[in-house]
Amino acid sequence: MTRQLHLGLFEAPAVNIMGMALWAHPEHTATRFTDLAHWEGLAQRLHDAAFDFLFLADSYGWGELDGARPDVNAAQALDLPRMDPSLVIAALTRTGPNLGHVLTAPTMFEPPYSFSRRLATLDHLTGGRVGWNVVTSSFAETASRAFGQPMVAHDERYAMAEEHLEVVYALLEGSWEDDAVLADRERRVYADPSKVHEVRVDGRWFRTRGYSNAVPSPQRTPVLFQAGSSRAGLAFATRHAEGVFLQGSTPARLAEHVAGVHAGAARAGRGPGAVKTFVGLSVVVAPSREQAQARHAEYLALNTRESAIASYALFTGVELGRFDPDAPFAGVRTELGQSQVERHTRPGGVPGPTVGDVIEAHRTRGSRGLVVVGDPDDVTGQVLELADSTGVDGFLLEPFVEPGSLDDVVEHVLPRLRAAGRFRHEYEESTLRERLFGPGQRRLRDDHPGAAHRRPAPAPAPVEALP
Amino acid sequence: MTRQLHLGLFEAPAVNIMGMALWAHPEHTATRFTDLAHWEGLAQRLHDAAFDFLFLADSYGWGELDGARPDVNAAQALDLPRMDPSLVIAALTRTGPNLGHVLTAPTMFEPPYSFSRRLATLDHLTGGRVGWNVVTSSFAETASRAFGQPMVAHDERYAMAEEHLEVVYALLEGSWEDDAVLADRERRVYADPSKVHEVRVDGRWFRTRGYSNAVPSPQRTPVLFQAGSSRAGLAFATRHAEGVFLQGSTPARLAEHVAGVHAGAARAGRGPGAVKTFVGLSVVVAPSREQAQARHAEYLALNTRESAIASYALFTGVELGRFDPDAPFAGVRTELGQSQVERHTRPGGVPGPTVGDVIEAHRTRGSRGLVVVGDPDDVTGQVLELADSTGVDGFLLEPFVEPGSLDDVVEHVLPRLRAAGRFRHEYEESTLRERLFGPGQRRLRDDHPGAAHRRPAPAPAPVEALP
Repeated sequence: MTRQLHLGLFEAPAVNIMGMALWAHPEHTATRFTDLAHWEGLAQRLHDAAFDFLFLADSYGWGELDGARPDVNAAQALDLPRMDPSLVIAALTRTGPNLGHVLTAPTMFEPPYSFSRRLATLDHLTGGRVGWNVVTSSFAETASRAFGQPMVAHDERYAMAEEHLEVVYALLEGSWEDDAVLADRERRVYADPSKVHEVRVDGRWFRTRGYSNAVPSPQRTPVLFQAGSSRAGLAFATRHAEGVFLQGSTPARLAEHVAGVHAGAARAGRGPGAVKTFVGLSVVVAPSREQAQARHAEYLALNTRESAIASYALFTGVELGRFDPDAPFAGVRTELGQSQVERHTRPGGVPGPTVGDVIEAHRTRGSRGLVVVGDPDDVTGQVLELADSTGVDGFLLEPFVEPGSLDDVVEHVLPRLRAAGRFRHEYEESTLRERLFGPGQRRLRDDHPGAAHRRPAPAPAPVEALP
Repeated sequence: MTRQLHLGLFEAPAVNIMGMALWAHPEHTATRFTDLAHWEGLAQRLHDAAFDFLFLADSYGWGELDGARPDVNAAQALDLPRMDPSLVIAALTRTGPNLGHVLTAPTMFEPPYSFSRRLATLDHLTGGRVGWNVVTSSFAETASRAFGQPMVAHDERYAMAEEHLEVVYALLEGSWEDDAVLADRERRVYADPSKVHEVRVDGRWFRTRGYSNAVPSPQRTPVLFQAGSSRAGLAFATRHAEGVFLQGSTPARLAEHVAGVHAGAARAGRGPGAVKTFVGLSVVVAPSREQAQARHAEYLALNTRESAIASYALFTGVELGRFDPDAPFAGVRTELGQSQVERHTRPGGVPGPTVGDVIEAHRTRGSRGLVVVGDPDDVTGQVLELADSTGVDGFLLEPFVEPGSLDDVVEHVLPRLRAAGRFRHEYEESTLRERLFGPGQRRLRDDHPGAAHRRPAPAPAPVEALP
């Protein structure tokens, strides 16, 4: 089996990622996150290694305990500070000129009219190398307060997101036809007015009646990613996402999730191959297994129980510090970050973990997916075994320290994946969508809901002539 | 007199600027506006010439006649298409590493919480070379429809803008103290929690209760520019702007405007030198006066009466095509782009122009400020005369074609300004604010209203000890 794997790197223009305070590690450079040179160094490494994309997470809110942001959040930069990822991506356009970039942005706080233009601008500037990780909102309660907006309940936020995408599709797919722009100096016609359309969407949350500001970019709608694994999130993802990020805690559950995504996409009327699945993967690799384990322990020792409790509250709204550590952790549901809570909630019948177990799990894992620790052959073997046993299409590397975690994978794992014929040696020139879905697939597939907004509407299938 | 002049270049990520459809000129490259290489070429030229800044205009709406976007708007790209200027600026960070960038963004459509982070991110990435041209909204009626927002009347939009700035100041000036970030690996403290503040603004239009996402950037609040010349706009500018763009139609009126800005700033409690004034200046310069005049005529011949009528409606909401061309143009007021209407409205008593005169003026000027046409000595002389007779601090060059209009000024005018000791030969390393206000002035001056948000509050002036 020689199915090629796709690889992305998870990062964020912030001091920590994955809810773990590892910034103080002597090799970690994330405190330089406001410095463009820091990002250029990372993008260049990813480009040299022919990664599919750099993924930039984002959010606006912060965590609270007892109604206030606890000191540990500032002291350990568990939530703030951050920068705007779309501007970081734009600034990296020329660094690593073939690297893809996946932007995270929330439908709850980005007005879709201006946001659609931002997406199109990035797609133009990068020549079609942009994806959008659609989130409804992260840390929605405090973010709502920051924006002076009313809080919206979890499942309602997906209804909002549906409308938001409707506006984005209408503008990016339906406003300017492919041949609208003539730029014909002789005839003095820039655009054919009959091919530039006013679009209308009248939703409960979002409305537009307008023309897209943007001429069609290489991909029009950027490649759409989604990561929510709640029921509402999964339903949304199987309708809209072209790439789904999963955080399977075991290979068996991951295989179920992968199959669930493809089944859901089929139920949503999308054909085979419509969705690529990615799983979050933390790798600690060193020349020997012992060195890797020691390194992993060294990372974990940096994160404290106090940080873990505050971080867990940030992701879920649940303040575990209020509970007896020996009490069973069960059935906790909340409007916030439901999928994070569900990760630690076993199906009925199986004895569940205690509150203390969940705190310790969050301290040592944060929001990471699978964790693989070992020597180069161990790790490569596990990565291939994971891919082949679960059907996942690729991995989103979740580093512990930057650039060390990335460098270790590039040095020890990529050569082995390449020798096994499972990862590219170099880029072919292409848009991000073509990299994932094959040459020629620059635009949304015809079975994607966004394609229904295209104008002119596709011609009906030819009727067979009667004999 | 050797007062140094400041120079910016007016541009927009769009096909036309200044309401004139000149895109089809054979030397004009603006149809390449979606191509980053186009912007890199321009930024490199500006950097080589040591310009203060590249100014990028922006808006969202489009023009209508009789309730619909007329075909000429699409055919001549009078309004759309456009790209997001903030992303263009980010992509130009490394091209011309000392060039300043002024971003135009509307307070009516940019949520201030996320926008403040965008400003801070640009300021971080560029090392403090960013300015914000505050507009309430351009083409607000159609833009409101596009955003699905209620229309807000002209003067109310300035009340909105006041609140928007209040939120931006609170976040960028008041949330993180200068020494909040320690990034102390030994003590394992990233930020001092006592120096990171939640800020609160409760306005009619905008509210926030939150922490800034951004650690302090080199300038914190970017240099603030403003261009409105309506009464409400001028009152706003004299309170908030550090750079004011004027569009004086004659040197005498320009001198009045310059004096008016400084008087207004003084009334707003700001000390001498708080505001720099810039005037829009279109230059057509060629080795001989005749060549320059021929070139100017060649540009103007591209623009049609039909485009002018549509463009005028875009800027003002007034459909001049409905009126008898010989009727007097007088007293037209509208909620839209009031200052554009006022430019053509003389004070009572003086016989005013006809409707046809205004159409022709708009066809040949669009929204340009002063126009200077001549040989290199003519133009240089007029530029210096303008500066010295009006007290204006600098010029915002409004090109007819790119890069030709810029190249002509760089070749023919800058060497003469330099020989006269009136323009820099090369950059000193600095933030944009220092370039305009002198070394050390990286942050808002203490007499700026944004400075009142600083924490800790400035110590009270020491009381003289009694003898």
